[in-house]
Amino acid sequence: MLPNPLEELQKAFEKFPGIGPRQANRFIFFLMKQPQDLDQTVQALIGLKNNVGLCKECYLPANLGEACYICLDKKRDKSTVYIVEKESDAINMENVGKFSGLYFVLGENISPIRESQMAKTRVKEIIRRIKKDPDKKEVILALNNTREGNFTALYVEELFKENIESSKIKLTRLGRGLSTGSELEYSDEETLRNAFENRR
Amino acid sequence: MLPNPLEELQKAFEKFPGIGPRQANRFIFFLMKQPQDLDQTVQALIGLKNNVGLCKECYLPANLGEACYICLDKKRDKSTVYIVEKESDAINMENVGKFSGLYFVLGENISPIRESQMAKTRVKEIIRRIKKDPDKKEVILALNNTREGNFTALYVEELFKENIESSKIKLTRLGRGLSTGSELEYSDEETLRNAFENRR
Amino acid sequence: MLPNPLEELQKAFEKFPGIGPRQANRFIFFLMKQPQDLDQTVQALIGLKNNVGLCKECYLPANLGEACYICLDKKRDKSTVYIVEKESDAINMENVGKFSGLYFVLGENISPIRESQMAKTRVKEIIRRIKKDPDKKEVILALNNTREGNFTALYVEELFKENIESSKIKLTRLGRGLSTGSELEYSDEETLRNAFENRR
Amino acid sequence: MLPNPLEELQKAFEKFPGIGPRQANRFIFFLMKQPQDLDQTVQALIGLKNNVGLCKECYLPANLGEACYICLDKKRDKSTVYIVEKESDAINMENVGKFSGLYFVLGENISPIRESQMAKTRVKEIIRRIKKDPDKKEVILALNNTREGNFTALYVEELFKENIESSKIKLTRLGRGLSTGSELEYSDEETLRNAFENRR
Repeated sequence: MLPNPLEELQKAFEKFPGIGPRQANRFIFFLMKQPQDLDQTVQALIGLKNNVGLCKECYLPANLGEACYICLDKKRDKSTVYIVEKESDAINMENVGKFSGLYFVLGENISPIRESQMAKTRVKEIIRRIKKDPDKKEVILALNNTREGNFTALYVEELFKENIESSKIKLTRLGRGLSTGSELEYSDEETLRNAFENRR
Repeated sequence: MLPNPLEELQKAFEKFPGIGPRQANRFIFFLMKQPQDLDQTVQALIGLKNNVGLCKECYLPANLGEACYICLDKKRDKSTVYIVEKESDAINMENVGKFSGLYFVLGENISPIRESQMAKTRVKEIIRRIKKDPDKKEVILALNNTREGNFTALYVEELFKENIESSKIKLTRLGRGLSTGSELEYSDEETLRNAFENRR
Repeated sequence: MLPNPLEELQKAFEKFPGIGPRQANRFIFFLMKQPQDLDQTVQALIGLKNNVGLCKECYLPANLGEACYICLDKKRDKSTVYIVEKESDAINMENVGKFSGLYFVLGENISPIRESQMAKTRVKEIIRRIKKDPDKKEVILALNNTREGNFTALYVEELFKENIESSKIKLTRLGRGLSTGSELEYSDEETLRNAFENRR
Repeated sequence: MLPNPLEELQKAFEKFPGIGPRQANRFIFFLMKQPQDLDQTVQALIGLKNNVGLCKECYLPANLGEACYICLDKKRDKSTVYIVEKESDAINMENVGKFSGLYFVLGENISPIRESQMAKTRVKEIIRRIKKDPDKKEVILALNNTREGNFTALYVEELFKENIESSKIKLTRLGRGLSTGSELEYSDEETLRNAFENRR
């Protein structure tokens, strides 16, 4: 019963992560009521399409054909690499303001069953580069503490050990224990064990 | 730390209903990975902007400058009007397939404090039109069973009574009682009372 | 590691509906800290055990060996029976204050697969009694609007039709439509259809 | 409308932590249907009342007039104390199976506004005992990573520093970082900072 462009737009929005038909409709009616927001969205999407790509060094978003702001920044500490699954994991860490090294985005977790995979290629690429780079001192695996994140960390660690002398470059994982708001009563055994072993 | 067009797009998405910074970022990274979905979204948004407006009869979306599919449909029963707050309330009812009359969208609930309001203007407009139309037989108030929806219904009813002889046109509200999945143990007193009084 | 009586009490509380090991522990530590609440609970449980049974007329709780307060109340309207699944469904309706007839508790929903079942026996019993009682005018099926509740209603209706002339006693179900707080945007099709058909 | 003992029992259950009138009713109807569970609950409650008290050493539950199983166990390492808010925090750690020292239960968090408080008395007591005990080597503050837990930890630390030479006894806190299931995308800045600083 809706005009064609609405049906098209509904289909497009339904592909967005986490968006179902109901919220797709809400987006549409919101944009119909706010023509200036509709314009702004169209312009920003066209800007994304025409002017943004991935940094060839670290796969963070960058101006098309260039390296990203962080890789271009001469003040960053090139001896440390912080390996993440998602772009937003790097952005979140950047907001913390404690890390001054470089990032590297895998783009997804390593799958135990898929043979050929973008993330595997990227892991091999970063290990090759780390190996050749005499300035590298530490690689931080900043992956989710989930089954998938832990499998990915394991994969990187194995490949790291095969290729890089541990005496030269340190490989670390993010610390484990109580996160903000954690109550002992609701903490699982693994978290309690980690919190106990990592007490300080 | 992100390229400008991303910041612009993040701002645009954050205005979407129910979308915060995190999901705005997810949308962006999704679109960066799926260029064809980015294209589809841009095209659909431009289509919305250039080709879609509101039906002058009922305020449902329509091809620009035209009445909506339902108002144009000669087979619809013009004696009945189903008044809703939101466009999607009309779409949902259309999917039920039981109603063959016309719709009228208020666009928002009536506010008890704002003097001048789009919804008030629309209520006056539909009552004026109903009054003049000798074919109208029933007006259905299909508003949320919430404080806001009930206040809106009250407002329409008052204006209706002042302007239209009840013997000529029937004004009804959607029925109340147990909705699908309702358990008596968790039902509030008003719902139980309505369910009891409307037993059949 | 806990003293025996605690382990026993933990096991007992874990059988309570909706209670897991964690909340069972909370109950115990609460009672250890509040000896007067522990005493009150013990006394009340002993009171329940020694002095409370089920009403032989309607299966609501009653003083041991007696009928319940409602069945004993001469002012109640004996022409109407309100059939519920659970005791609390009757209590909730009593709090609404609109119903002055008698209740009848099935104790559970009818199962489509179990041949012999307490609820089936109770349905047969109430139908037998209704059939013989010249004063009965209406039987209200006050069951959940869920798959289980609707199946139970169907079972009672079938047995009712086989045994009782519909001209003599009316069989009704609780009304269906929007419950308190229902928004049209989130209502399923069946609820919308019911709300539409039961408009008034 | 319910028999007196039920009303009493409802009142008693409503005092249980996290229990409202609806679940109190559910407990009652459950116990009325399961007389053997009612008996078991009564017996276990009487056992709790007559045979269980708090360990004078650590405030964990113990057989009345005795120390708890852990304090009585000669194999436990008496050089380490694990200070918790709740009994269940100790039980959870015991299930982890990594800690072989002694526990000490505060029973509640320290309040910044209440002058005289059970937990303050207990903190003073444990610090007095630690001070006199030449075998003590480590005190572990195992408190929630919440505002209340952190305030309590601060209070214990201050009192500890005033009374005990840090060279003699180590005071530690549970480690902080990613807990099981933590995703970087949803982790707050403090957790990310802790996870980064505690990387290993």
